[in-house]
Amino acid sequence: MSAKTKFTFGLWTVGWLGADPFGSATRAPIEIEETLENLKAVGAYGITAHDDDIFSFESTEAQRRTAIDQLKAGLSNTGLKMPMLTTNLFSHPVFKDGAFTNNDREVRRFAIRKVIKNIDLANEMGATTFVMWGGREGAEYDSSKNIMDALARYREALNVLSEYVLAQGYDIKFALEPKPNEPRGDILLPTIGHALGFIETLDHPEIVGLNPETGHEQMAGLNFTAGIAQAIDAGKLFHIDLNGQKGIKYDQDLVFGHGDLANAFSLVHLLEFGKNGNSAYDGPRHFDYKPSRTEDWTGVWESAKANIRMYNLLEQRAEKFENDPEVKALRQRAKVDQVSVSTLSAGETASELAKESSNFDPDSYFNNKGAGFVQLNQIALEHLMGAR
Amino acid sequence: MSAKTKFTFGLWTVGWLGADPFGSATRAPIEIEETLENLKAVGAYGITAHDDDIFSFESTEAQRRTAIDQLKAGLSNTGLKMPMLTTNLFSHPVFKDGAFTNNDREVRRFAIRKVIKNIDLANEMGATTFVMWGGREGAEYDSSKNIMDALARYREALNVLSEYVLAQGYDIKFALEPKPNEPRGDILLPTIGHALGFIETLDHPEIVGLNPETGHEQMAGLNFTAGIAQAIDAGKLFHIDLNGQKGIKYDQDLVFGHGDLANAFSLVHLLEFGKNGNSAYDGPRHFDYKPSRTEDWTGVWESAKANIRMYNLLEQRAEKFENDPEVKALRQRAKVDQVSVSTLSAGETASELAKESSNFDPDSYFNNKGAGFVQLNQIALEHLMGAR
Amino acid sequence: MSAKTKFTFGLWTVGWLGADPFGSATRAPIEIEETLENLKAVGAYGITAHDDDIFSFESTEAQRRTAIDQLKAGLSNTGLKMPMLTTNLFSHPVFKDGAFTNNDREVRRFAIRKVIKNIDLANEMGATTFVMWGGREGAEYDSSKNIMDALARYREALNVLSEYVLAQGYDIKFALEPKPNEPRGDILLPTIGHALGFIETLDHPEIVGLNPETGHEQMAGLNFTAGIAQAIDAGKLFHIDLNGQKGIKYDQDLVFGHGDLANAFSLVHLLEFGKNGNSAYDGPRHFDYKPSRTEDWTGVWESAKANIRMYNLLEQRAEKFENDPEVKALRQRAKVDQVSVSTLSAGETASELAKESSNFDPDSYFNNKGAGFVQLNQIALEHLMGAR
Amino acid sequence: MSAKTKFTFGLWTVGWLGADPFGSATRAPIEIEETLENLKAVGAYGITAHDDDIFSFESTEAQRRTAIDQLKAGLSNTGLKMPMLTTNLFSHPVFKDGAFTNNDREVRRFAIRKVIKNIDLANEMGATTFVMWGGREGAEYDSSKNIMDALARYREALNVLSEYVLAQGYDIKFALEPKPNEPRGDILLPTIGHALGFIETLDHPEIVGLNPETGHEQMAGLNFTAGIAQAIDAGKLFHIDLNGQKGIKYDQDLVFGHGDLANAFSLVHLLEFGKNGNSAYDGPRHFDYKPSRTEDWTGVWESAKANIRMYNLLEQRAEKFENDPEVKALRQRAKVDQVSVSTLSAGETASELAKESSNFDPDSYFNNKGAGFVQLNQIALEHLMGAR
Repeated sequence: MSAKTKFTFGLWTVGWLGADPFGSATRAPIEIEETLENLKAVGAYGITAHDDDIFSFESTEAQRRTAIDQLKAGLSNTGLKMPMLTTNLFSHPVFKDGAFTNNDREVRRFAIRKVIKNIDLANEMGATTFVMWGGREGAEYDSSKNIMDALARYREALNVLSEYVLAQGYDIKFALEPKPNEPRGDILLPTIGHALGFIETLDHPEIVGLNPETGHEQMAGLNFTAGIAQAIDAGKLFHIDLNGQKGIKYDQDLVFGHGDLANAFSLVHLLEFGKNGNSAYDGPRHFDYKPSRTEDWTGVWESAKANIRMYNLLEQRAEKFENDPEVKALRQRAKVDQVSVSTLSAGETASELAKESSNFDPDSYFNNKGAGFVQLNQIALEHLMGAR
Repeated sequence: MSAKTKFTFGLWTVGWLGADPFGSATRAPIEIEETLENLKAVGAYGITAHDDDIFSFESTEAQRRTAIDQLKAGLSNTGLKMPMLTTNLFSHPVFKDGAFTNNDREVRRFAIRKVIKNIDLANEMGATTFVMWGGREGAEYDSSKNIMDALARYREALNVLSEYVLAQGYDIKFALEPKPNEPRGDILLPTIGHALGFIETLDHPEIVGLNPETGHEQMAGLNFTAGIAQAIDAGKLFHIDLNGQKGIKYDQDLVFGHGDLANAFSLVHLLEFGKNGNSAYDGPRHFDYKPSRTEDWTGVWESAKANIRMYNLLEQRAEKFENDPEVKALRQRAKVDQVSVSTLSAGETASELAKESSNFDPDSYFNNKGAGFVQLNQIALEHLMGAR
Repeated sequence: MSAKTKFTFGLWTVGWLGADPFGSATRAPIEIEETLENLKAVGAYGITAHDDDIFSFESTEAQRRTAIDQLKAGLSNTGLKMPMLTTNLFSHPVFKDGAFTNNDREVRRFAIRKVIKNIDLANEMGATTFVMWGGREGAEYDSSKNIMDALARYREALNVLSEYVLAQGYDIKFALEPKPNEPRGDILLPTIGHALGFIETLDHPEIVGLNPETGHEQMAGLNFTAGIAQAIDAGKLFHIDLNGQKGIKYDQDLVFGHGDLANAFSLVHLLEFGKNGNSAYDGPRHFDYKPSRTEDWTGVWESAKANIRMYNLLEQRAEKFENDPEVKALRQRAKVDQVSVSTLSAGETASELAKESSNFDPDSYFNNKGAGFVQLNQIALEHLMGAR
Repeated sequence: MSAKTKFTFGLWTVGWLGADPFGSATRAPIEIEETLENLKAVGAYGITAHDDDIFSFESTEAQRRTAIDQLKAGLSNTGLKMPMLTTNLFSHPVFKDGAFTNNDREVRRFAIRKVIKNIDLANEMGATTFVMWGGREGAEYDSSKNIMDALARYREALNVLSEYVLAQGYDIKFALEPKPNEPRGDILLPTIGHALGFIETLDHPEIVGLNPETGHEQMAGLNFTAGIAQAIDAGKLFHIDLNGQKGIKYDQDLVFGHGDLANAFSLVHLLEFGKNGNSAYDGPRHFDYKPSRTEDWTGVWESAKANIRMYNLLEQRAEKFENDPEVKALRQRAKVDQVSVSTLSAGETASELAKESSNFDPDSYFNNKGAGFVQLNQIALEHLMGAR
């Protein structure tokens, strides 16, 4: 573990009590102080929260303030930071058809008010990333929602909120969190890609980026590492949610690495060594997972530790992989690094390329010029398995 | 069927001979003239093609010219148009690791040369849309490819080709076709969203849009209608590939409507009536499907007809749905059209909204204010089933 | 609608209040009398229930009896029947690691006691089918559970309960309900097939069959109609759960037909006309769905009606499809009915067949002898769409 | 690697030349002698084959005999065994609608003749397992096939062939290989479970078992280890196909362990230590994979080696996991081994259990009695990663 790695946990993660669609809670809530102390003990750098994790939806102003002060005291006592805040726009019945894109304009207005208040809180708490997960923005039926209108309203909300942040001079950026489905049948901005495309239609794309979540992309059968690489390529990896998911099914929120282990390995390699051997992302490594419903509080803290332990083990193995001379030789054979070289020469135009008299023989790639990808992958897996 | 609807077919669709990963061809090839006559007979407006559909990869210049002239004669005889052309960058062994993003620079250069030549042909044929399906741009293993470098090369290729089109003054736009996987384990630009996001990083985004395919989005479990709506919202629906897919599995390329029927219905409704009751897309309705391997040539032409028949039946039902007073009443109850109204009032700012003294009661949404979405969907399905 | 069709609803279906993994209930509970009257009004033949739907888990004996008597009175007043009862072995924390296969023997014993008590109740209520959904029998991690031991315990529980039913002389059969995942990461007996295979290892397979659910099979990407056909072939379709699911994702429990419409059509065709034109299943058509969380109570009853309406519309269309002379001709061409003819002639042995001097020419199937399946499917869909 | 482990490879695996649905072959075929020598060199115990892998479909009797003799010589020279043979009933156009369940009776008869001839060959070659993969038994459309009739024909074929084997006195057992889809839209007997259920309806279930394939089960999102455990529980694991698959998509046939690594670990643990610490399966470890299309022949042999290397690494790690005292303690805490204890006491009846006056308190499982599954899984993964 590099001392610099900042591991953070959502309050709602270790705070999940185990209620699921088919069963009631299996754990009783604990005090915020106890949560913070335990997270400190497992090695966390900080915590994150929805507004409703800190104080309940129905809180009076006084109750809200008490809860905030209590949290601040806890952070102060433990030295934990709070680099990210987000808004719960999905639990209360008022959001049953969404928030920013609700068919009911009054709900849309209420949702924006709720977010604004929470942006002020983020600023107060020193959080510089503000995540937006629009889990209820969507539909079960295609007739329920005019999608183009809904995207216009989504855009309006983000534009209004961006202007607010800019007007207030807050040091805050937004990070959209895509998800394909659950709790809605289909959710708007279902993948990293859809969110990236959408951001470019905003008034202030410079302060809106992404908070991709491992399991959410994998629920669409997509390669999380490849998605993160595209987000980095677009300059939009503002935050990241690490967890585990075993393929296309309900949202599992397992411990990081407890899902697709090989993809977790390539992800950590990308984050830590993906920029010419250097780190490609400098934000917190944020765990958004759920301690399994079978566990009691002892198991909760073990599960929290497991996230950090997995990340550190993967990082160690990624470092050995990165520096292994045999890997370098195989990568060279597979021409992996040749992709960084421009296809056209400096100053060369398409027309010049087209007219090039080349003795290139496409048939020489038949029964020849194998890439060696399988062998390279085998070596990668051996590093992952600690076998080299 | 509105007389205006332009149905087109890829030559490779009816021309597919039935070879699949586990079996050899079940049909013998036929002459291009016969293909064109039969497509004309089933009601096609035009055809589309890969270069390799017109002349084989190994063709000499003379063979190439002969094939082009033969095609032109056939089009002239039948009156069929050719609004779209595309390049085969996936079948030959030279492309086994991709084209624009191949780890081997020589292959990347060869691929661009092949496309340039084909852009000239598109211009010659009067095709104004040039589709790019990067089916081999991807990897089976995360160690095989530096994704950020690969995206840079993808971008370079599209920039170079865009400059070529602009320099030549061609009336041609590019349409990227996303696909999540198959034939590669993971393909770059896997969904509509990823391609939309990528386009915004190009030098000439104005001439690059999308050619989304029904089955490709559904292979990622995504809602095709919602994806198309986002593409339209972004001004990027340049072309469309219609077919059928039964859920997340191998690429089936069934007849349009023979997969997810309810989603096909909402798609046709969007395309034909999605812009305030008017058509939301004015390009060809292009079928990219495969006649099942069990069929002989009689079955091929029946399958071609089935595509058009499905579209027309769905359009008729969508029109009745659009104009049904009961539907209008239910949509009003569900506030579907209210989403077109701005959430903030004209001139209203976030700060003003935040300070609004509202008597909005979120709890009034509990046990109350049901949307009526299920009933609306039921009526939609009854229209689809011709039961109203 | 044939007067004979017996539509039943689980009390937990219309009784679902809308709490999901990301949000609280959106509806307040109503009295059992109101539920029964409304179900009667929408056309139900009867209702079904878990024990915990009738009286809460914590009920005293007196409270339990009061609730049962109240239900009996309601059934008597409305004339509704109760053909099926089942046990809730998944909601309470005690079942967090399963019931019959829980790692903790005390829980396993408790679970069997709970079921026995409920079997007595089923007998009292006149229910002849006893459904077993083992939703918590499974694991998130392969190390959590010895699967072979767990199957042995599952078997033991079913054997013990079968012996109890036989010893009491009850007119009750068990119906296992498979599901691949959710709420556990992987559930034992994940599909129709796994349950069929398991039944044959029991001591009393004659009183154990299946209760397959549309969405559960479709969550594994499997064809529900084909699965039901295999269950009928094995003599094991004891009950059926009808609902809607849009592909591989979380368990949606939509209205029947609101998921994969074409597959719903073939299912109704199988149930109503699948045995040489006659009904292939004579039990209740049981809806196990959830009224969307967006709906209020008006919407709940509309959604209940929608289930019946869909079934009836599909049955009408299936009947026309069954009797359409053009369909008969196409089926004859496709040799669909030839599959009912034995492959070997009466008395013929394998050795005789092997030695047969046949002039069969496999190559005659190349470019010839097309099945016409696409055209037949197109006609089927046109019937489904009311277009014939 | 335990000396006893018998690794086998299908001739079609290393023999796959790279043709896929979107591209032609990338490798030229090699002679059988070279194949056998190379497989010997990588550590194979033996090979397996389809009839058509040994001699082409169109072979004359003389050509067939020459090819068989050539294979025998090669086996003799290398010392490789041939424990399994299977029949290709899927590649030729004659099988476009299946073999045993083809709508055309003449094709069904032809298919059985082809298998009988191949059973004689299996006997000649000393193969004791005869695999049946019915890859074309299925349909794209529900109207194409009467599933109940098709199952009857499938059964007839297996009964006839079983009688043939018994009549000839051959030492041969059949192993059915399930697959959910591809190349057909839906395939009959789609999972381990469906095949298990079907076997029990046969005349000679004692000589019919399973040959489950890793990727096939994972294409349905199912847990392969759990499926294998159920097959073992039913006494039906006659053979096994090991490979890699990354989730629900087209059939990838990656190297074993190159898909879901954690599940591969639990599988090897089950196979090698699953029966009270002893091996739970004593047949060959058979690899059914495809060397990636990007590879040349050097890469093919590297990929073959990688399969064996992965198995051996996983076995080593499974052994350490099995014997780790900390694992034993955690398993004890999680009561994993308690599942082997009968739920009822010896002689106890259901009625006695029901009447038991127990002071069992279900509420004691709330906020208490956590299973420790996450921690146990973490330790398992650390063993897999060689970190303990």
